Amino acid sequence: MFAKIKPLYEKLGNLSGIQLIVLFYLSAAIFSTVLLRMPFFHQEGMHVSWLDSFFTAVSAISVTGLTVFSTADTFNYAGYIALAFVLQFGGIGIMTLGTFVYILLGKKVGFRTRQLIQIDQNRNTLAGLVKLMVRILRTVLVIEFIGGIVLAIYFLSYFDSWQEAFMQGFFASISATTNAGFDITGASLVPFADDYYVQFINMLLLILGAIGFPVLLEVQELLWGRYKNLEWKYQFSLYTKVTTITFFILIIVGALGIYMFEYHHFLQGKAWHESLFYSLFQSVTTRNGGLATMDVSEFSTPTLLLLCALMFIGASPSSVGGGIRTTTFAIMMLAIFHYAKGHDTIKVFRREVDPDDVSRSFIVATTALMLCGGAITLLIWIEPLNNMALVFEAFSAFGTTGLSMGITPDLSIAGKLIIIVLMFIGRIGIFSFLFLLRGQDVKDRYHYPKEKMIIG
Amino acid sequence: MFAKIKPLYEKLGNLSGIQLIVLFYLSAAIFSTVLLRMPFFHQEGMHVSWLDSFFTAVSAISVTGLTVFSTADTFNYAGYIALAFVLQFGGIGIMTLGTFVYILLGKKVGFRTRQLIQIDQNRNTLAGLVKLMVRILRTVLVIEFIGGIVLAIYFLSYFDSWQEAFMQGFFASISATTNAGFDITGASLVPFADDYYVQFINMLLLILGAIGFPVLLEVQELLWGRYKNLEWKYQFSLYTKVTTITFFILIIVGALGIYMFEYHHFLQGKAWHESLFYSLFQSVTTRNGGLATMDVSEFSTPTLLLLCALMFIGASPSSVGGGIRTTTFAIMMLAIFHYAKGHDTIKVFRREVDPDDVSRSFIVATTALMLCGGAITLLIWIEPLNNMALVFEAFSAFGTTGLSMGITPDLSIAGKLIIIVLMFIGRIGIFSFLFLLRGQDVKDRYHYPKEKMIIG
Ligand SMILES: [K+]
Ligand SMILES: [K+]
Repeated sequence: MFAKIKPLYEKLGNLSGIQLIVLFYLSAAIFSTVLLRMPFFHQEGMHVSWLDSFFTAVSAISVTGLTVFSTADTFNYAGYIALAFVLQFGGIGIMTLGTFVYILLGKKVGFRTRQLIQIDQNRNTLAGLVKLMVRILRTVLVIEFIGGIVLAIYFLSYFDSWQEAFMQGFFASISATTNAGFDITGASLVPFADDYYVQFINMLLLILGAIGFPVLLEVQELLWGRYKNLEWKYQFSLYTKVTTITFFILIIVGALGIYMFEYHHFLQGKAWHESLFYSLFQSVTTRNGGLATMDVSEFSTPTLLLLCALMFIGASPSSVGGGIRTTTFAIMMLAIFHYAKGHDTIKVFRREVDPDDVSRSFIVATTALMLCGGAITLLIWIEPLNNMALVFEAFSAFGTTGLSMGITPDLSIAGKLIIIVLMFIGRIGIFSFLFLLRGQDVKDRYHYPKEKMIIG
Repeated sequence: MFAKIKPLYEKLGNLSGIQLIVLFYLSAAIFSTVLLRMPFFHQEGMHVSWLDSFFTAVSAISVTGLTVFSTADTFNYAGYIALAFVLQFGGIGIMTLGTFVYILLGKKVGFRTRQLIQIDQNRNTLAGLVKLMVRILRTVLVIEFIGGIVLAIYFLSYFDSWQEAFMQGFFASISATTNAGFDITGASLVPFADDYYVQFINMLLLILGAIGFPVLLEVQELLWGRYKNLEWKYQFSLYTKVTTITFFILIIVGALGIYMFEYHHFLQGKAWHESLFYSLFQSVTTRNGGLATMDVSEFSTPTLLLLCALMFIGASPSSVGGGIRTTTFAIMMLAIFHYAKGHDTIKVFRREVDPDDVSRSFIVATTALMLCGGAITLLIWIEPLNNMALVFEAFSAFGTTGLSMGITPDLSIAGKLIIIVLMFIGRIGIFSFLFLLRGQDVKDRYHYPKEKMIIG
């Protein structure tokens, strides 16, 4: 038996880290497809096709939240729990869980595994990475547990039984923290459109999930240090500063944009606090929970385009979210600004941005946009559905946001496959997508003379 | 009197080259506004508002070709000639004409003027630039003259008088060579939808105008060298190779795309040669003449999106066209491809692309896209018109292409102003637009430590 396993193992060893990650995600998606199609998890009389099960599995593993059928009406309690596990698995990242399993089994985590983790979370230092992974998992579980308890207790007055309240509370907490956007209410957070408490808790969980693990860990370190030594001065990393500021600027810009565009439309005649919460929640959800307190197809086209842009940018890296990521966007904006000002280096917070990071950012964003543009053109070509709804669907899938104007179940087989591919690439990241084709880094050993060209 | 002029002159001297170019273009636009509004140039009973005249002037100076009124029905013969002069002025570039005037007046062309020309045409060597400019002008005039004669003689059978035939022929030749896209037929090239000879001549002129002056000059050098010495080996520049190949790839991809998307729509039931010419001509025209042999609003949405992308890319640099330019697009594609393959330098035709050019390309494209995206969102917000038509209009204006789904005259004042800004930025180039704010190149004298971030 070992004779057969060894060659496979060696073959795996030859694959690049990123190819292995893709393989892992694919396996997880296929496993989830089979799992979620088991009639044991369905309500009576419900039948789920293989394609729809695969769609749901990829949507869950990529924590997108797009659905081709009603989660609430199709799955039973056992199904909700199974789905929650898939979300957890996808959201925290297969690599994190993988490491955890390794440690649980008492195995020493090898260099190759740590290298895998590094690529998935894009960390540049290998040191202490294993410890880091454990802390990530612990942090997320603590957040989910507290969120679940807080929501469940509050839900006791909403639902008939405490079982239902706890199921709804914990599912909502997991769905929000992993930014999965799945719901078992049957209508996202629309039933809580006037319940600011539930919305506030959900926004908090969405933000904690999407702001990026490194940020959470640095804040933890800061608080822990302060607790032990009041004089302690903590230096946040450049990454944490840039990503967090970008994250909140995007939320504010999004909320203001929605407020402005919808002032004479959806928000017409609503009280200021209603307008505030509608604008704020729908802005936060593009960063990238995908829960909604309203039917987004009620928004006017300018708002929908704004949401598309926000979903495309997506969450912070090393978080549960997708999109091109906040850092990518921030670096591009900084590069354009500094270039226009005539500087030849990008300075921010008394640090310089690495030129490699600048080119990587632009490459990621450009590839992502061409991918979305191509997908949108194809979708409009083959689907007899509303064009804006298709544009919105594509950006939502790539950003793994999961907001929808309601056309997901109406997609053709080809349309569903396109959305599946977008969700998958959105989850593994453009970066990994680009690297898929290549095996090893190629160091250029020879050089040609440089020749300048005329641009723009 | 000199006492007053000198400070102004000194002030001009302090402006950066690009600011001066913008100033020149603005002055030219204002001058043309006044010129084209003179009743002397209008047919009887026609009244043109200041805004519409300004719109037409910017459209002509930027050789875009978008029109808020029928050129054929508004202007008289004198008006056509005046418009042709404005097109000529805009198309060849104010700098080229400026140099020419300098030489005609017997003045020595100073370093500053040559520097201006260098920026406008994006040439990297100052040497021989003045000679180059003269050759550019000569080349364009020769092309226009031959095109005009060929078309005028052919038009003798189309039109009642030889005056009309020659007016139509020369206006068409100037409009095509400068890629202006204005027409005095009243319906672009639709009357010639089944006349492949006229279409072929027009495509040839469009390509010669949009392929970039340096390419034409290098081809001229090659032919001249061959004529003098049969053994002569000529080495095309990297720029010429890259831009020309990209140029023709875009035309082929565009034609194939149109053919594919329209096979069951507009091209349904048409003969193969009709389909070929419809696809080919509409592909060439996005590169960026703006003439059309059909009403583009008859195209289906996927085709319109494809045309938007092609118009956004636009013509080759140092040509009469706009957009982000073919080289910008080519360098981005090369960068993505080489990056995915794991190379750290971009090698093409046994040369290496300058890393500065790579970042410049991405910065140009990203800024342009955000500009168009913002403009489109605003247009959709304020205009009660078809969304796809507004998207198309914005990309057409930025690419200075001039194709339209027919909504230009229906735009509100704000909408017209947005399109004017897009045409203007499209003409001066994103590059100049970004530099507008700054005075001098800032050399960074101090450095901070570099810190890597997590991306995408
Ligand atoms: K999501
Ligand atoms: K044009």
